[in-house]
Amino acid sequence: MADDTAGIDEIELDEGRVAALRIAVEAGDTGEVLRLVEPLHAADIADFLEQIDAAERQAFLAIYAGEIDGDLLSEIDETIREEVIESLPAEVVADAVRDLDTDDVVDILEDLEAPAQGRILDALDDADRVAVEQAMAYPEGSAGRLMQREVVVAPEHWTVGEAIDFLRGAEVLPDQFYHVILVDPRMRPLAYVTLGRILSARREASLRDLAEESFRTVEATEKESEVAYIFNQYHLISCPVVDAAGRLVGVITIDDAMNVLDEEHEADMLLLAGVSEEASVLDGPFATMRQRLPWLVVNLLTASISAVVISRFEDTIAAIVALAALMPIVASTGGVAGTQSLAVAVRALAARDLTSSNARRVVLRELAVGAMNGLALAAIIGLAAWGLFGDPWIGAVLAAAMVVNQIVAALGGVLVPLTMDKLGLDPALASGTFVTTLTDVMGFLAFLGFATLVLI
Amino acid sequence: MADDTAGIDEIELDEGRVAALRIAVEAGDTGEVLRLVEPLHAADIADFLEQIDAAERQAFLAIYAGEIDGDLLSEIDETIREEVIESLPAEVVADAVRDLDTDDVVDILEDLEAPAQGRILDALDDADRVAVEQAMAYPEGSAGRLMQREVVVAPEHWTVGEAIDFLRGAEVLPDQFYHVILVDPRMRPLAYVTLGRILSARREASLRDLAEESFRTVEATEKESEVAYIFNQYHLISCPVVDAAGRLVGVITIDDAMNVLDEEHEADMLLLAGVSEEASVLDGPFATMRQRLPWLVVNLLTASISAVVISRFEDTIAAIVALAALMPIVASTGGVAGTQSLAVAVRALAARDLTSSNARRVVLRELAVGAMNGLALAAIIGLAAWGLFGDPWIGAVLAAAMVVNQIVAALGGVLVPLTMDKLGLDPALASGTFVTTLTDVMGFLAFLGFATLVLI
Repeated sequence: MADDTAGIDEIELDEGRVAALRIAVEAGDTGEVLRLVEPLHAADIADFLEQIDAAERQAFLAIYAGEIDGDLLSEIDETIREEVIESLPAEVVADAVRDLDTDDVVDILEDLEAPAQGRILDALDDADRVAVEQAMAYPEGSAGRLMQREVVVAPEHWTVGEAIDFLRGAEVLPDQFYHVILVDPRMRPLAYVTLGRILSARREASLRDLAEESFRTVEATEKESEVAYIFNQYHLISCPVVDAAGRLVGVITIDDAMNVLDEEHEADMLLLAGVSEEASVLDGPFATMRQRLPWLVVNLLTASISAVVISRFEDTIAAIVALAALMPIVASTGGVAGTQSLAVAVRALAARDLTSSNARRVVLRELAVGAMNGLALAAIIGLAAWGLFGDPWIGAVLAAAMVVNQIVAALGGVLVPLTMDKLGLDPALASGTFVTTLTDVMGFLAFLGFATLVLI
Repeated sequence: MADDTAGIDEIELDEGRVAALRIAVEAGDTGEVLRLVEPLHAADIADFLEQIDAAERQAFLAIYAGEIDGDLLSEIDETIREEVIESLPAEVVADAVRDLDTDDVVDILEDLEAPAQGRILDALDDADRVAVEQAMAYPEGSAGRLMQREVVVAPEHWTVGEAIDFLRGAEVLPDQFYHVILVDPRMRPLAYVTLGRILSARREASLRDLAEESFRTVEATEKESEVAYIFNQYHLISCPVVDAAGRLVGVITIDDAMNVLDEEHEADMLLLAGVSEEASVLDGPFATMRQRLPWLVVNLLTASISAVVISRFEDTIAAIVALAALMPIVASTGGVAGTQSLAVAVRALAARDLTSSNARRVVLRELAVGAMNGLALAAIIGLAAWGLFGDPWIGAVLAAAMVVNQIVAALGGVLVPLTMDKLGLDPALASGTFVTTLTDVMGFLAFLGFATLVLI
């Protein structure tokens, strides 16, 4: 079988195949649709579903419903998953979810409304349903939701031979497992052994002697972002999950942790840009509007602060109208500097490279960088304005405002997220709006203030 | 051994421990330093080194040099790795790198200058040195640099029993492996079998019958970002790497792919904020200045375009000075909207959710969202300005400019990165500067233009 599939399976969903599939779907050509979809991985079929519009999706599902399995349901983006599940015959959904490990069923259930949830739970056999309901009892975004309950354990006194005989006799094993977890009689995990070590050891060897030096567990109530951090920091492949009493209740594998890491990064990037974190390019216009309008309205209000500041200097502007043209330069460059400092700080907080141990040093560095960049930019803009307007004082005002605002920007970019973090808030949340408001207000204030003092 | 270490190993580097360690280092208290460091994972010791300043680092290394191993060298951030290696006795470095898999040695070498590279290569035994030099011959950021050369292969006709006997007899096995790769006589990979399947099958079973359905390889010259995408998309745990002739040359494991994914996200976030992608919170002020000043200077030039636009309307501003105070509102809100649209688009391009198949639909969505948000913001600012200034026409000018600029922002936020991507450039690169320049210029132009037409 290997030779037959090796080439075919590596086919990815390229633009040619998407185009051919859309034509076949529109023509209702079942044979051609199946031929084009057959070599694709479930993840790529899901991507195809995401790239077409709702009408095409219905036409495709009418042709393809019989082939849909649990893997495909798992892969479909949550934005369209409910729509897909609603349009499938109930027995197709039931058959599909029965194949899945419990963590994948939980992942599907989380984003559905109650009626659809009930239909899926009813389709599961009793043991699986209880397992899924237990997982759903953990808070959203916790390790308990992320873990699979299928675990491979052995008493700590077993030998390699006993473990192999047990595995050979097991009726059902998890789809993926990388360790055998050693437990005490109360099911508390003590250590784990990699499968590679078991395979390369003699049958008489004791599992305890083969255990990994490094061993960590997480509690089921731990936040999934903490889980992703632990996997990334300690290079874990799988991690046993325990309840409050320290008993093994499941295991999280690295592919789930990688997925969480991916989503956390996405959330940070979107929050920093003032978009709600679940935003997707697949959302419709109204959902998108709801994700963006709140911060736009907030920005409208904060921008009004700048307007009030500027209005205090109307006499100055009336005297020298050229100031109105020059003032956005200081504010805009400050905004960029603040965004730079902010991005580095938010990222460092997420990676835990910025802590209370080095915060003072980082803030001092930002002060130095703000001053140096400010001086460099001041030299450029100051000389340019002097040359253009033939007046050294206009250049001096621009230069002085630039230095002040660059320092404010660099400091604000690190102090705002540090403060958010101290308050227990997500440092990415709204920091961008705070920092650019700060640099706008300070840019206009410094520039028009110095101009009033020096030029009027 | 499991019971003894289970509790201790879970100790993380918290702020109390950092503080205690710094005191012990300053006091030169070797025993206390070793006691505090001993239970920590290498990744946490590396974090400690990153959180203290250079002088403390030297003091710590003077105490701790004898304990340094390859794992710790691997974990240390590249920003300070060269400094650490330079300050260690040559034989400590040599001993440390000899323990490592080749991919980790390559990872360390990549960021060093030639003399330090030479010292490390000299420390390796001949076989490892050749392996490392071959990996270094692949381009930076390629799969060939990422892979480990230690692989576990079996002829495709072997049985489970033969594979287990081979593994038990092998003198050296990789630190981590999750599959046995089946190869043909020319070392071309055909399929792989998970260790879990081998462990649970009878000795007589054929490896071919146990092979995974899904199987992918990557070429050694493939970009590491593509490798990370493949792991994330297809949920791979390990992936064989082949040369141009399809022969197996190494294997990449998911922990390396997760690391690349992490770095790619970081690079996108920093680039989008106008910071060069290798920026770290650990860099000194001069390195930081070099990472940020280029885009600040670019922004100084692009902001000058806004200044030129505004200067064309000096007569209008001179006639109604209040316009100078109101004009940044339109520009600023446009900047936020552009950044929102941009963040979603850059993220979707990276995740390959935005492709030529759905680009038209996404652009039309942005048009609709820009228009709807523009109308909502226009209603607020228009009515507020009417109320404040008692003049409906000032409100109308603000409202009209707001609608225009919100549409421009939403479209610019998606069209700029799409265009960059089409041109083969990184969509995150400089997009922020382009988009905010666009929204600034358009904001001032629309507002002052309408004002000139309507109010003057």
